[in-house]
Amino acid sequence: MAETRIVTLTTDFGGSDHTVGTMRGVILGINPAAQVVDLCNAVNSFDVLDGALTIAQGYRYFPPDTIHLVVVDPGVGSARRPLLVTTSMHYFIAPDNGVLSLVMDQEERLSVRHITAEHYFLQPLSNTFHGRDIFAPCAGSLSKGVEAEKFGDEITDYVRFQLPKPKMISEHTLKGAVLKVDKFGNLITNLTPQNAPAIFAAGAAVRVTVGEAAVAGIRSAYAEGQAGELFGLLNSMGYLEIACNRGAASQVAKAGRGAVVLVEF
Amino acid sequence: MAETRIVTLTTDFGGSDHTVGTMRGVILGINPAAQVVDLCNAVNSFDVLDGALTIAQGYRYFPPDTIHLVVVDPGVGSARRPLLVTTSMHYFIAPDNGVLSLVMDQEERLSVRHITAEHYFLQPLSNTFHGRDIFAPCAGSLSKGVEAEKFGDEITDYVRFQLPKPKMISEHTLKGAVLKVDKFGNLITNLTPQNAPAIFAAGAAVRVTVGEAAVAGIRSAYAEGQAGELFGLLNSMGYLEIACNRGAASQVAKAGRGAVVLVEF
Amino acid sequence: MAETRIVTLTTDFGGSDHTVGTMRGVILGINPAAQVVDLCNAVNSFDVLDGALTIAQGYRYFPPDTIHLVVVDPGVGSARRPLLVTTSMHYFIAPDNGVLSLVMDQEERLSVRHITAEHYFLQPLSNTFHGRDIFAPCAGSLSKGVEAEKFGDEITDYVRFQLPKPKMISEHTLKGAVLKVDKFGNLITNLTPQNAPAIFAAGAAVRVTVGEAAVAGIRSAYAEGQAGELFGLLNSMGYLEIACNRGAASQVAKAGRGAVVLVEF
Repeated sequence: MAETRIVTLTTDFGGSDHTVGTMRGVILGINPAAQVVDLCNAVNSFDVLDGALTIAQGYRYFPPDTIHLVVVDPGVGSARRPLLVTTSMHYFIAPDNGVLSLVMDQEERLSVRHITAEHYFLQPLSNTFHGRDIFAPCAGSLSKGVEAEKFGDEITDYVRFQLPKPKMISEHTLKGAVLKVDKFGNLITNLTPQNAPAIFAAGAAVRVTVGEAAVAGIRSAYAEGQAGELFGLLNSMGYLEIACNRGAASQVAKAGRGAVVLVEF
Repeated sequence: MAETRIVTLTTDFGGSDHTVGTMRGVILGINPAAQVVDLCNAVNSFDVLDGALTIAQGYRYFPPDTIHLVVVDPGVGSARRPLLVTTSMHYFIAPDNGVLSLVMDQEERLSVRHITAEHYFLQPLSNTFHGRDIFAPCAGSLSKGVEAEKFGDEITDYVRFQLPKPKMISEHTLKGAVLKVDKFGNLITNLTPQNAPAIFAAGAAVRVTVGEAAVAGIRSAYAEGQAGELFGLLNSMGYLEIACNRGAASQVAKAGRGAVVLVEF
Repeated sequence: MAETRIVTLTTDFGGSDHTVGTMRGVILGINPAAQVVDLCNAVNSFDVLDGALTIAQGYRYFPPDTIHLVVVDPGVGSARRPLLVTTSMHYFIAPDNGVLSLVMDQEERLSVRHITAEHYFLQPLSNTFHGRDIFAPCAGSLSKGVEAEKFGDEITDYVRFQLPKPKMISEHTLKGAVLKVDKFGNLITNLTPQNAPAIFAAGAAVRVTVGEAAVAGIRSAYAEGQAGELFGLLNSMGYLEIACNRGAASQVAKAGRGAVVLVEF
């Protein structure tokens, strides 16, 4: 029954080209019984951090033995290595550029292999589309039951980065940043109940600004915001989010990815 | 064999975030044999009417026992109720905000339940992503064969709205509106052969304008329009559509959702 | 086991409407065991050449007996014929407007049928959405095992076009064109190792311009380009691509689909 395994796709290839469809074809061409499921194919172009945030939010809901293919790969064709990562429940295939860093933060047991078994690759091998030529065929073979150790040896020197952390820039001021703007224009920041507990405390007396714009206060649901008002809430990812009820906070605040978030206590 | 059931997704979550992929994961995590199929995940943000039009067009083509998950939910985290609606052929899971109104218009037998069985929800329950925490897990459990009555009691005071109807504003003038702009820039109006039969009559002598722009006449297919010409046709949804052969009527007419459509007889 | 066949979708319907979801419903309504897989649903509106490029890149990776549904159909509702094309490995259902031309270039054995068996169509038949009413239901029936010859007779006068070819416009100058801008802003041209071998020769002394912009040279991978530099490479489709490392060549060059590419030897 290994043949019915789920393979998810997380890429920055978007929907307007053949590329994601071609990867689906490669996987199904190797294992027609695979279930190919999109996690998200519109990661910001070349944005490894956005890819890391995306896969880290969604992967753990999938059933055991799911194979997650993560291809945000600005270094395609260079010396960066293809990886196969095994956790207690899931498999991940991705370039060695840190895109799995935030998955690794959530997992206690990790085996990281450098994929070197070229007989699983498509030939001829292009320099520009390893999603098709390396990553998808390895996922297809893995989904058919090829054991992880067949793909290459374990390594320990893989790339892993930390999410940019907020910093105290004066005695009473914490400086964070917008990590991502979602489809609704919500501004997702790197402030969390762990690194900035005062924001989320009941009756907190803090002043939050994003870019040039003031945030009215902390709410617990979108529907609690007044029209046109910017407010903060603890979002479903566990981060402080600057939002606007039925509106785009990014437009109201004129702020985007990388904008400075200041919290004054 | 109940496990192989189809679950469709209709949301305003878009493709650029993890959210739709996470919902797929939640459903498959509960029932790995479910078939998750996108109906449309790019409903206009917060636009319950657009969601209602979208699900109403597509649902009836799916096989019996399909579960349709419809999450256009600007009231997430407020007191609005989650619903499970059963028709003679299909199941629907959605917030109680009217998004199923146009489905209900097509169905004779309806059972509407308020989902209260919290043991089917994910924990902890967020205030901002009930697609993940309430709607998807209920769909997953329903797809595994849990009976509808297990999710909560029937109610009759659910939200249901009527499609905005055209109105006679003078003896010879009917005023309608653009409900939606489709991907090609076609302007889909609320005028139909039922509420404005004169438009579609053979040899009709009517003058149609949309916004500031005049419509040349009524055609029966896109290819019958001349280059740059705005024309009307009865579209595949059963509405008057203002179109432009190989062009975007929305650009030619400089008109969008909500634009006034005047029909002078 | 014919019932588990894969049906792929390649359309210009985009993701913002019910249309692609409705086609999925029609196929699954006829054959609930079909696997509907997106090849690409964001072909440029009305752009048969873009559709031809898209399906030609992806189809051959899918398993034998896959059914490819290709609906880029500006002539919907006119006299253009619906086709069922059989190759040695795959099936294709598409309008007779040349959208399969580049598939045909790769296949030695072709059977092309004019679909006339109206009892496989949905009724009533619209004039504006044959994806739903003709193409999807025929794909559904074909996926259930209906033989190709049941859909209509073979024809030989179908539409087939050639990819626009580069031309020598002076003794030392070859003029090509940009065929497509991909999601990353890469400019995909009609120059190939077959029609312009000098570009790709080792140590080639050629000068390439796209629109008004000069191309620095030929590289073998994206990561070899310097910041902000336009360069060419042989891409994974087998064409000369003008690219920019971690940037959008279309923005750097201010050039798009149809832009002139000059190669001076």
